[in-house]
Amino acid sequence: MACSRFEYVKLFESHDRLLPGCWAVIRLDGRCFTSFAKKHSFRKPNDERALNLSNAAAKQVLKTFDNHLVLAYGQSDEYSFVLKRESNLFSRRESKILSTVVSMFTSVYVLMWSKFMDVELQEPPTFDGRIVLYPLTCHLRDYLSWRQADTHVNNLFNTAFWALVDQDGKSLKEAEKLLKGTNSKEKNELLFSQFGINYNNEPQMFRKGSLIIRRPGNEGYEFPKRRRVDQPSNEDHKGTTYLVDMQKDLAPSDDDYHVLHTDIIKDDFWKQHHYLLWPPDDSPPRIRKT
Amino acid sequence: MACSRFEYVKLFESHDRLLPGCWAVIRLDGRCFTSFAKKHSFRKPNDERALNLSNAAAKQVLKTFDNHLVLAYGQSDEYSFVLKRESNLFSRRESKILSTVVSMFTSVYVLMWSKFMDVELQEPPTFDGRIVLYPLTCHLRDYLSWRQADTHVNNLFNTAFWALVDQDGKSLKEAEKLLKGTNSKEKNELLFSQFGINYNNEPQMFRKGSLIIRRPGNEGYEFPKRRRVDQPSNEDHKGTTYLVDMQKDLAPSDDDYHVLHTDIIKDDFWKQHHYLLWPPDDSPPRIRKT
Amino acid sequence: MACSRFEYVKLFESHDRLLPGCWAVIRLDGRCFTSFAKKHSFRKPNDERALNLSNAAAKQVLKTFDNHLVLAYGQSDEYSFVLKRESNLFSRRESKILSTVVSMFTSVYVLMWSKFMDVELQEPPTFDGRIVLYPLTCHLRDYLSWRQADTHVNNLFNTAFWALVDQDGKSLKEAEKLLKGTNSKEKNELLFSQFGINYNNEPQMFRKGSLIIRRPGNEGYEFPKRRRVDQPSNEDHKGTTYLVDMQKDLAPSDDDYHVLHTDIIKDDFWKQHHYLLWPPDDSPPRIRKT
Amino acid sequence: MACSRFEYVKLFESHDRLLPGCWAVIRLDGRCFTSFAKKHSFRKPNDERALNLSNAAAKQVLKTFDNHLVLAYGQSDEYSFVLKRESNLFSRRESKILSTVVSMFTSVYVLMWSKFMDVELQEPPTFDGRIVLYPLTCHLRDYLSWRQADTHVNNLFNTAFWALVDQDGKSLKEAEKLLKGTNSKEKNELLFSQFGINYNNEPQMFRKGSLIIRRPGNEGYEFPKRRRVDQPSNEDHKGTTYLVDMQKDLAPSDDDYHVLHTDIIKDDFWKQHHYLLWPPDDSPPRIRKT
Repeated sequence: MACSRFEYVKLFESHDRLLPGCWAVIRLDGRCFTSFAKKHSFRKPNDERALNLSNAAAKQVLKTFDNHLVLAYGQSDEYSFVLKRESNLFSRRESKILSTVVSMFTSVYVLMWSKFMDVELQEPPTFDGRIVLYPLTCHLRDYLSWRQADTHVNNLFNTAFWALVDQDGKSLKEAEKLLKGTNSKEKNELLFSQFGINYNNEPQMFRKGSLIIRRPGNEGYEFPKRRRVDQPSNEDHKGTTYLVDMQKDLAPSDDDYHVLHTDIIKDDFWKQHHYLLWPPDDSPPRIRKT
Repeated sequence: MACSRFEYVKLFESHDRLLPGCWAVIRLDGRCFTSFAKKHSFRKPNDERALNLSNAAAKQVLKTFDNHLVLAYGQSDEYSFVLKRESNLFSRRESKILSTVVSMFTSVYVLMWSKFMDVELQEPPTFDGRIVLYPLTCHLRDYLSWRQADTHVNNLFNTAFWALVDQDGKSLKEAEKLLKGTNSKEKNELLFSQFGINYNNEPQMFRKGSLIIRRPGNEGYEFPKRRRVDQPSNEDHKGTTYLVDMQKDLAPSDDDYHVLHTDIIKDDFWKQHHYLLWPPDDSPPRIRKT
Repeated sequence: MACSRFEYVKLFESHDRLLPGCWAVIRLDGRCFTSFAKKHSFRKPNDERALNLSNAAAKQVLKTFDNHLVLAYGQSDEYSFVLKRESNLFSRRESKILSTVVSMFTSVYVLMWSKFMDVELQEPPTFDGRIVLYPLTCHLRDYLSWRQADTHVNNLFNTAFWALVDQDGKSLKEAEKLLKGTNSKEKNELLFSQFGINYNNEPQMFRKGSLIIRRPGNEGYEFPKRRRVDQPSNEDHKGTTYLVDMQKDLAPSDDDYHVLHTDIIKDDFWKQHHYLLWPPDDSPPRIRKT
Repeated sequence: MACSRFEYVKLFESHDRLLPGCWAVIRLDGRCFTSFAKKHSFRKPNDERALNLSNAAAKQVLKTFDNHLVLAYGQSDEYSFVLKRESNLFSRRESKILSTVVSMFTSVYVLMWSKFMDVELQEPPTFDGRIVLYPLTCHLRDYLSWRQADTHVNNLFNTAFWALVDQDGKSLKEAEKLLKGTNSKEKNELLFSQFGINYNNEPQMFRKGSLIIRRPGNEGYEFPKRRRVDQPSNEDHKGTTYLVDMQKDLAPSDDDYHVLHTDIIKDDFWKQHHYLLWPPDDSPPRIRKT
C-alpha cells in the first residue's frame, strides 16, 4: 500500500503565486451575518462588543504575520488586511495566505467570543475571503478610502434607520421607505431635528471604522527600526538603499498595536505615518525568489 | 464622501472560477499542529478525541453544503472535501469556496473543542487549505487512495515509534534511529514480537482514517432520491437523462451522516456506493451558467 | 553591464500550466477577415482556394506536433486543434503552446498564399487564438459538434444569401431582410425553388468543414502503432496497460494526413476512429512531471 | 442541427484578464532560430538584414496598436512590446493580446522576407511569446535594462567567437573553449589585439539592439498631443488631471516611428523621453471597465 503509485495526483496542484511587487489586500466578510447578528442579539445600529471582538481577532492575525502585514481595516462584519509589497509570506501562494488568514481570524473570533459577548454562541460564525492585488500605492489608498467611505454611508443610514425604528416606533418597512432616496444632508437633518442626534458626535469607531497598526515609539521600541540594505548598485542607481524591519524575532504583543478610528481618506494620516506605505512606488521593492 | 469615486478598485478583483465539469478537492491542513498537539497534550500516536472533533467539524461542513459536497475524508490534522462535478456552489469561485470551507471547519473546531477535549484551548487552532481539480473519476479515486495510503504509512510508523518511546523507554532520537529504513513488514514484526501488538487489530479509525458520507436508506429516506432530468436530446444522444438530488430543501441532521473507517483504495467500497461518484465520466455532467 | 542585477524581473513571469489530464482545444480565428476577404476578392459564399490554404497551414501544425495534436477541425477563417490529454508539449505551458501554434499557422498561411490564391497579398493576415480545456471526452465531442453545427448554420445562410445577391440581383440589405427569421427548412426551400439548388448537393467541404487526421494504414504503416506500456499496477488495477505511439521519430509527411469532410456530430465517425479519442475517460491517462 | 445544444461548451472558456494598472510586456522569441538562421545563411555574428526585417515586423505591430503599445525593443530573434498601463486593448484579455501580436509579427516577417533577404524562405519561421506584468515603472525599466544588458553580453561574445572562427580559422569548439570563462574586458582585448577590432566601434544596432518609438514633432505633429482630462476630483486629489493621446484616428505611417540604437539602461534617454513611461507611478492611471 505504498503512496508512490498515487503521488502523481500532486501534479494537478496549481501554482497560484501572487504577482510580486504588488500590494495585496486580504478581505474577509461574515457569511450570512444579518441572520447571525439577529440570532445573537447584536445591538443596532452597531454592536460595540462585536466590533471589539473583530478587532481582537484582527490583532491576532497582525501579530502572527507581523513582518508581512502592514495594517488592517475593519467595519461591521468585514476586515481587510494589507500584505506588504515585499512580503514573501508562504512564497506568496494565494490559497495558503487566504486560507490561513481566514482560519486564524475565525478561530480567534470563536475563542474570544465569551470575553466580549454575554450571549452564548449558537452557531459557528463563518467568514469568506478574497485577495485583490493593487500595483500602485494610489490604488491601495483608494481601496482603503472605498472601504471607509462605505463605512460612513452605511453607518449614517443605519443610525437614521434604527432611530426611526427604536425611538420613533416605525416598522422596518416604514423606516426603509422614509429614508429611500435621501442624501447625506437630509439624513443628518432628520437625525438632528427628530432625535436631537448630532451625527458628528456619534462614536468615531462607528463612523470611521477601525484601523490597526503597529504602535511606534513605546519604551525601548523605536519605530520603524529599519536597517539600510544596499541594493546591487550601478552608476545610475547608486545609493539606492532601503530599510527593512529588524523586529523579526521580537514577538509583538497586543500592546504593540494601536486601534485607531481616524480619517484615512485625506492625506493627513498618511503623511504622519509615511513609513506604513513604504517603500514608495519609485523605489523598487525587493523581489525575492520564492 | 461618496463611494463611487473609489469603486473602480473593484475592477482589480479577479475571476477565479474553477474549471466546470471537474471534481474539486478542498484539502485543509492544521498549521503548526505538531506544536499545537503538544501544547494540548494530544495522546500519541493518535488522539481519538481530537479525531472525533475533526470529524464533527467536517460533518458540519458537509451538512451545510449538502448538495455540493459528496464526501469528506480525514486523518490526523488534515481533511479533504470533494466538490461534485456539477456543483455550481458560489458560481465555482475558488476563493469563496476555499475560504468558506476553511472558516467553517475552524469555527466548529473551536466551538466544539470542550465537548471533545478535557484541556482548555490555549491558542487559536488554524488550518490552511487549497483546492485541486481532478478531471476524471479515476484521478479522484487515486487522490483518495493517496491520502489513505498516507494514513497507513504514517500510522504504522507512529504506532511503532510511540511503542518504542512509551513502552520501551527509548528516547525520541533512539526510536527514530531504530525505525529508519525499516519496511512495513519489519515494523509489523517489531510491534508483534516486542510489544505483542497485532497491527491489524489496531482501531480502524487510526489505520483507515475517517470517511464521511450521507447516510442512505434510513426511515422515510431512500437514497439516492433523484429525479430523472431530460437533457436536451437529439438523434444521437436521445434518452440521455440523469438524476439529481431532490433533498435540496430537507436540511440534513448529523444522523444523516455515516463516519466510516473502511478501505477506499480497492474497488469494493465504490461498487457498493456507486452513486457517490455519479455521474460517471461518460455521462455529461450538466454545465450551468454561473 | 552585467545581466545579473536585472534578472530578478524574471520572477514576475507566471506559471501557466494547463491542467493535466484534460483535452485542450487551441482555436484560431482570423482577425478582421470580413475586410481581409473583401480586399483579396474571396469568392462567396465560400472560397475553396482559401479553405485549402487554411487546411495546408493546419497540416503543417499537425505535422510539427504530431505526437501531441490528435486532430484539427476548420471552417471559414477559424481552426481548432485538439491537444492530447497526455501531451506534455512545452510542459503544457499555455502561452507557449498558444503562441507557437498561432505563429506557425500564420507563417504557413502567408508562405503558401501564392500557391493557392491568384491575387497578391495586400496586408498581413492575422489570427488570434485561445485555449479551452475540456475534462471529459463528451465535452470535447460536444465542442467539435458545436463547431460543425455552426459551420452548417453559417453555410446554409451564406449560400442562400449570396444566391439572392449574385443570381437574383438583390442588395446586401435586401438579402439580409429576406432571410431574417427564416429557419433551415425555409432556406432549403428558397434555394431549391428559386435557384434550383439542392443544398445537400453542395460541396461537403462547405457543409461539413474540414477535419484533418493522421492517415492510418498506408504502406508499412499500421495505425495506431502503439506499444503496450505497463502502468504501475496493484491488485485492483493490475493489467492496466495502454498503448503509446511509436512513431515519435518518424517525421510525418503531408501524405500521412487525411482531410475529411464528414459528419462528426453523430457517433459513426468516432466508432470507426475510436483510437483518436484514446485513452477513454475510464483509463487513466499518464500524468507526467513537467 | 442547432448550435444551441452544444453552446454550453463556451462555459469552459476562462477569463484571462491582465491585472489592470500594470505595465505588460509581450515578448516574442524565434523558435529554433539557430537552425533557421543556418538554413537561411544568416550572416554571423549579426545579420543586419534579418534585424531590419524584425524591425519592420515590429513597426507594423506598433502602428496597428498605436494607442496601446508605447514602445518595442528587439535584438537577435526576440522582440518585446510594452503595453500601456492604461490600455484596455481587447479588454486586456491575455490570450487575445498575445496571440494577435505574435501572429501579426510572424505574418509581416514572412510577407516582407524577400524585401530584406536574398535567399528564398525554406520553412515557416515561427515565434513563441509570453506576457509578463510589471506593477511599477522601475520594474519595467529594469526589464528593458535586462534585455539590453543581455544584448551586450551576447553580442560581445558572438563578435569574439566569429572573429576566431572566420578570421582565425578556429573550429566552433576551439572558439568556444578559448572564450570560456573570459570576462568582458578580456573579450574586448582579444578583439583589439588579435583582430584590430575596437568593440565600441561596432555598429550600434548590434551593441544596443533596436528601440522603436513613435516619432515626436514632425510637421504638423507635435508630440505628445494630449488633452487634459479631468479626473473625478475631491479636496485632496483636486487638480489631478492628465493627458491622453488625441491621435486615435490618425492612422500612423512607418515614418511616424523612430528606430533607435541607444542606451536605455542609464537615465538619460528616459529623461529626454519622459512622456513614454507616462503616467508616473504616483499619478493614478485610469482604470476602466472592460
